[in-house]
Amino acid sequence: MNTPVPDYLADLLRNCKTAHGGELADYIPELASADPNKLAVALITLDGLLYSVGDDDYEFSIQSISKAFTYAYVVEKLRLEAVMQKVGVEPSGEAFNEISLDQTDDRIKPKNPMINSGAITVHSLIPKAENDCRAETVRQFFSQLAGRELSFDLAIFQSEKETAFRNLSIGYSLRNFNILESDPVEIVESYLKQCSINVTVKDLVNMMSVLVNDGILPRTGERIFSHKTVRQVLTVMTTCGMYNAAGDWLANVGIPAKSGVSGGIIGVLPGQVGLAVFSPKLDRFGNSVRGIDIMQQMSRDMGLHLLEGVPSSRVIVNDHDVEQIRPGLKVYKLHGVLQFTDAERLLRKLQDEEQDGGTIILDLSHISLVNDVGRRMLLDGIDRLRADGHNVALVDPENIVPHAKTPSDFEPHVYQDLEDIAK
Amino acid sequence: MNTPVPDYLADLLRNCKTAHGGELADYIPELASADPNKLAVALITLDGLLYSVGDDDYEFSIQSISKAFTYAYVVEKLRLEAVMQKVGVEPSGEAFNEISLDQTDDRIKPKNPMINSGAITVHSLIPKAENDCRAETVRQFFSQLAGRELSFDLAIFQSEKETAFRNLSIGYSLRNFNILESDPVEIVESYLKQCSINVTVKDLVNMMSVLVNDGILPRTGERIFSHKTVRQVLTVMTTCGMYNAAGDWLANVGIPAKSGVSGGIIGVLPGQVGLAVFSPKLDRFGNSVRGIDIMQQMSRDMGLHLLEGVPSSRVIVNDHDVEQIRPGLKVYKLHGVLQFTDAERLLRKLQDEEQDGGTIILDLSHISLVNDVGRRMLLDGIDRLRADGHNVALVDPENIVPHAKTPSDFEPHVYQDLEDIAK
Amino acid sequence: MNTPVPDYLADLLRNCKTAHGGELADYIPELASADPNKLAVALITLDGLLYSVGDDDYEFSIQSISKAFTYAYVVEKLRLEAVMQKVGVEPSGEAFNEISLDQTDDRIKPKNPMINSGAITVHSLIPKAENDCRAETVRQFFSQLAGRELSFDLAIFQSEKETAFRNLSIGYSLRNFNILESDPVEIVESYLKQCSINVTVKDLVNMMSVLVNDGILPRTGERIFSHKTVRQVLTVMTTCGMYNAAGDWLANVGIPAKSGVSGGIIGVLPGQVGLAVFSPKLDRFGNSVRGIDIMQQMSRDMGLHLLEGVPSSRVIVNDHDVEQIRPGLKVYKLHGVLQFTDAERLLRKLQDEEQDGGTIILDLSHISLVNDVGRRMLLDGIDRLRADGHNVALVDPENIVPHAKTPSDFEPHVYQDLEDIAK
Amino acid sequence: MNTPVPDYLADLLRNCKTAHGGELADYIPELASADPNKLAVALITLDGLLYSVGDDDYEFSIQSISKAFTYAYVVEKLRLEAVMQKVGVEPSGEAFNEISLDQTDDRIKPKNPMINSGAITVHSLIPKAENDCRAETVRQFFSQLAGRELSFDLAIFQSEKETAFRNLSIGYSLRNFNILESDPVEIVESYLKQCSINVTVKDLVNMMSVLVNDGILPRTGERIFSHKTVRQVLTVMTTCGMYNAAGDWLANVGIPAKSGVSGGIIGVLPGQVGLAVFSPKLDRFGNSVRGIDIMQQMSRDMGLHLLEGVPSSRVIVNDHDVEQIRPGLKVYKLHGVLQFTDAERLLRKLQDEEQDGGTIILDLSHISLVNDVGRRMLLDGIDRLRADGHNVALVDPENIVPHAKTPSDFEPHVYQDLEDIAK
Repeated sequence: MNTPVPDYLADLLRNCKTAHGGELADYIPELASADPNKLAVALITLDGLLYSVGDDDYEFSIQSISKAFTYAYVVEKLRLEAVMQKVGVEPSGEAFNEISLDQTDDRIKPKNPMINSGAITVHSLIPKAENDCRAETVRQFFSQLAGRELSFDLAIFQSEKETAFRNLSIGYSLRNFNILESDPVEIVESYLKQCSINVTVKDLVNMMSVLVNDGILPRTGERIFSHKTVRQVLTVMTTCGMYNAAGDWLANVGIPAKSGVSGGIIGVLPGQVGLAVFSPKLDRFGNSVRGIDIMQQMSRDMGLHLLEGVPSSRVIVNDHDVEQIRPGLKVYKLHGVLQFTDAERLLRKLQDEEQDGGTIILDLSHISLVNDVGRRMLLDGIDRLRADGHNVALVDPENIVPHAKTPSDFEPHVYQDLEDIAK
Repeated sequence: MNTPVPDYLADLLRNCKTAHGGELADYIPELASADPNKLAVALITLDGLLYSVGDDDYEFSIQSISKAFTYAYVVEKLRLEAVMQKVGVEPSGEAFNEISLDQTDDRIKPKNPMINSGAITVHSLIPKAENDCRAETVRQFFSQLAGRELSFDLAIFQSEKETAFRNLSIGYSLRNFNILESDPVEIVESYLKQCSINVTVKDLVNMMSVLVNDGILPRTGERIFSHKTVRQVLTVMTTCGMYNAAGDWLANVGIPAKSGVSGGIIGVLPGQVGLAVFSPKLDRFGNSVRGIDIMQQMSRDMGLHLLEGVPSSRVIVNDHDVEQIRPGLKVYKLHGVLQFTDAERLLRKLQDEEQDGGTIILDLSHISLVNDVGRRMLLDGIDRLRADGHNVALVDPENIVPHAKTPSDFEPHVYQDLEDIAK
Repeated sequence: MNTPVPDYLADLLRNCKTAHGGELADYIPELASADPNKLAVALITLDGLLYSVGDDDYEFSIQSISKAFTYAYVVEKLRLEAVMQKVGVEPSGEAFNEISLDQTDDRIKPKNPMINSGAITVHSLIPKAENDCRAETVRQFFSQLAGRELSFDLAIFQSEKETAFRNLSIGYSLRNFNILESDPVEIVESYLKQCSINVTVKDLVNMMSVLVNDGILPRTGERIFSHKTVRQVLTVMTTCGMYNAAGDWLANVGIPAKSGVSGGIIGVLPGQVGLAVFSPKLDRFGNSVRGIDIMQQMSRDMGLHLLEGVPSSRVIVNDHDVEQIRPGLKVYKLHGVLQFTDAERLLRKLQDEEQDGGTIILDLSHISLVNDVGRRMLLDGIDRLRADGHNVALVDPENIVPHAKTPSDFEPHVYQDLEDIAK
Repeated sequence: MNTPVPDYLADLLRNCKTAHGGELADYIPELASADPNKLAVALITLDGLLYSVGDDDYEFSIQSISKAFTYAYVVEKLRLEAVMQKVGVEPSGEAFNEISLDQTDDRIKPKNPMINSGAITVHSLIPKAENDCRAETVRQFFSQLAGRELSFDLAIFQSEKETAFRNLSIGYSLRNFNILESDPVEIVESYLKQCSINVTVKDLVNMMSVLVNDGILPRTGERIFSHKTVRQVLTVMTTCGMYNAAGDWLANVGIPAKSGVSGGIIGVLPGQVGLAVFSPKLDRFGNSVRGIDIMQQMSRDMGLHLLEGVPSSRVIVNDHDVEQIRPGLKVYKLHGVLQFTDAERLLRKLQDEEQDGGTIILDLSHISLVNDVGRRMLLDGIDRLRADGHNVALVDPENIVPHAKTPSDFEPHVYQDLEDIAK
């Protein structure tokens, strides 16, 4: 058998209803002459498996989608606080407010890194490498994420440079407020070069896999971003990624996203999937018409929505999973995820244990995930059971509660297997 | 033993660092004379267990927190589209933009239901009941959610009414644009009465439990809101709940929230918990200083953040959970949650099954949660296994894949227990 | 013979080119049903002679034109500084800025008295008379200026009151900032009653004659406004009288003006004429289309433009008007106006007088106007002539340099007639 | 004797009350190191006589004052309509609105030529001369007006150029909207060079004399600007000349003006005087503190205010100036100015003439000024007298009613002198 995902994606393209709406970006000839019929979708799983359909090898300039990755890069390289001094995280509203007084710290700065003023500022924060070229630093970094050598589209870059009046206006305004600290022409041109990097939808989901997987590139296992950086990037994608309609996008699609004027849209659901769509015709806000349509469809079909609810296990432990092996020896076979909600429910169940001095074994071998608070509550519960006079042991073959040591400094016995206990 | 949650909450109050910051709201004497030392926290779990500490029986007027619940009520009673015609879902920015042209549909309307213009409009949409009083409808509804009879604080209501100049100005402006369709004085006064309903933090988390639990009131099992309504309310709480700093709140706390001028803040993490804090001293944006501090602390300590990542099971099926009971009979013991990511991984594993015509039993008895896409993918996978020549049966004692019928119209055999199969 | 003015005005109406443009105001039925063909012009001279043509006895509600006169009334009754605390004098720009922080004194207040927020505030400043009704005070005052008993149009007033949502919104907003200090509903309704006073174009120019004539009502000779009040009112008419295009109006018409939604426009050129036009069809800014057309035409035809230049006499004294009657006795026959420019030129001429101790007679009998600085410079010049050893005498039959006393405390001899001197 | 003007000006400097307020402009070192004690005033009369006191030979960079003269130059060289397509004439309000949609013609353009965006655009409209340098064209033009060779302050120019971030931002924004049609860097730098031209207060009033005198340079008699150009420039100086407070300035000073950041202010009262003040310390809006103080003082002392009222002659003809020389021959000795108001009064007087067929002589030899409408009304009146059966003759030695020909094609007899008639 084959998984149905490729079939699903192919169906999605076939049924894409708004096939004829929108207009090509026309401010430079290279975009105006794009093939309006190109259409591609790619999807990457938490563990890095990539599915793609349509024109998935077609290269297009990354444009504003680059903003999300460059922001992540800069937040990771500098302290977040330093970046926040320069660029905010608030939705932008009107264009003329692009640079405005921030209400939380009374500093003049771009509202967020997803509008041009913010993205240019973010670009200026890229530490200059030996090559002395920020755009090249970006290209190398994007190539690392994508897993292949990406290149600049020099024709696009040249055209953008010749008509970059608005970005240069923004650049000089940023320089005027000392938000940019060196020549704005150099920075704006380097930023435009960043936007001209060519990618396919497959490249984009490969790049996104690091955001899906909490900062670790699944292909290599390498940690690229800290947890804090990932959360920060996802935050700005949530509130500022789609032009002019943060609330509408969150209500209807609910996937942290970013679009680009060449027709790409990316979406990330942390811990689940990364999505990329490409279709060059744009709505009046500059978002790909078919791209939005497909993202909405996938959100609906696949239950991918930030506010769907973190799917708590209905039960961390079923009644029939508590086994009284013999008098004085009881086993709790836990399964599912162990985070706050679940840990709270487990401890609630353990409250009913009589203070009979017996042994309680917590079998963690079917726990699929545990987070920090889940671990801490589990250990705290063990302490409390001991205080009530119980012996407590863990079965933890995959070491999901590493170095188990409870708050009161007690180390429970840890077995590899329930069988061990019998011995 | 006892669960550590009450101790944790008590610690939280004790350590609340910003105990002395902020100022009491002073626009009416009733708020200006509040006891600044009152402090309370409550927490409710997905299944409706309530924890609370501090002044948890202290009553205060619900104020703007009511906006979230009234919005939910109106979205549920009317079609969402009808409500969207009147009130948007976008972050608001500056005050003077309270009523402005919406960019997505070119209508003049309040930006969202969490600012006063939006909340007054939402109040006007409450269908008039027999009692002919919208505020009374609200009071009865809030009482139903809270599980006890709530009452109006008439002294507060009277004071608000006497100084309601700004709200009356907004009301007449809404009437001018025909967003309100009847006398704005009556609507504004009824809205103020809604804001004067007295609650405790325990009432608040009881009310929120319905949002935590996807629209079903855990205390009664009654469905109050549809899934769509809950998602809509959580969306506006995410982007518009905390004044003036949607991005900052999402980055730092990440809990859909709403604050009120009397000093309360509520926060909801769908599928996990509901939180309420009360402390009357406010920062310059009108949010409770200690309330924000405690919410941040809980988000950090308890791993409660919308963008933490939906905790996918690391494995829906471990290798040692696939058991070849005998030639031609294999059992997959699934556990954890079954949504898109997990289903995709399961089906990927099933791809490796040889086309040997044997029987495959999928044991769902340890699956803790399955969502729609998970169910559909599972059934689709069964179909594909059959197409490959396998017999497929399910063990589904809790009927989590109800009326299992695959796309190709095949009903797999469903057992109550693995033991049944042996027979 | 007859003066050509009536013929000119009649021609103006006949040739009015834009006869068919514009739309009737339609927010209340009384205005929507106005006769669109009504057309009237009136003109009043500095000394109060009234010319009028067309439907000059047709009554219409004064509407916003009342703002100019009520402002004058309030500025006269209160100290200007007190009024300036409440309402500014700056052009308004966008509607949402109606109430905004004033840059010069950092107070929140309406930008000027010609927009509704300012006019409502101005109305609230009318001292309450015995009749306890500000609108009645206004009606009596307007009647005094118009020279006949004016009346309210109660049907218009009633309609306005029923749909006054925007004004009530403004009123409550003003009350919120304590710019209004009592019930806004009462003030707004009284303001609407002020706007409903019925006038004809003849009434309007009679009312304006007091502004043309520097505060003195020509019909009665009574001083109604101080010089300072008149200048203040003309200032706001210049910068804020015509909606949304202060600069455009000043460039093209150059007459301090005010328009009303019923179709009237008034224009004042201080020291020269007052104009009123009526035609009910409006452009998109709410100004009478034919009214603007006629005002432009009159400005052009009649050389009426604020920036035409104050027409200084080419010469206060011609060479052939200096007569050496006999040795030691010289007469300067002055004519024209005597203000700074002219006085400077006269004194410059007197510089050339030899210090021969002779008598110099300044004949002022043909001086048509002298202002304060002209008088002071003349007296200063006399002093200087005396210091040079001259005797100086004045011929001043109309006493235009009253109580002539020079800075050094010398009183020149004053004759009624040049003939007197001969004696 | 001497005229009191120099003494008056000297007193003015001595009494300047706010001697210590304000701060030097500090954005470039050249301005920050200006001598704060420099103080100068100059005044020029309609006929070009110059008075000056204080540091009247001290040179400073003209800065924004240049905007008024460059605007006049461009309006004169191009059609006004062409300039209005590019730059409006409305007061600006907030800075971020510098470039905004114009309400009258729905074009995006700078609000007026006195803000930087407008002034840069105006500079770009200067036709390029042989020297291919707009700044040099400006320097030559300013030198022509000032009557001496002016020079650039290259140190100031260099400093401005190095920190011109805001102007470059504006320039690129203008380029983006195609308001600038070539390289903004070149235009902005040339504009900065225009601002660096060194002038003294004496230069400034010499330059202004052409605006005082309706476009004719008094020193040479050459017409530099049309009447229409002068009126246009004075309009924008009235509504936009002083930063941020058009209404306040018009109310309190009432002189069309322009200030510069180096500390100069100019003011023009058409037909009367030109004023220039220099003192480098600025208020928070960038206007010279002592400059404003002195301008206010002069407006008050010298009766110089646009809204003072155009001083109409009280009488164009006194009763004792109508002489019945013999039966059938009557002489009207007119004096003063002859514009609409006066002409209307004269014709009103002539209405009383009996239809006796006698000769009426209008003696214009003491008329000091006649404008177009005055002339037309006079000729129209002559026609009407003839129609009533009178013979009419003029005494017009200075030919102020040139080529007198009445509407009905009749040429009245014109004498050089009353004596001629006797003959």
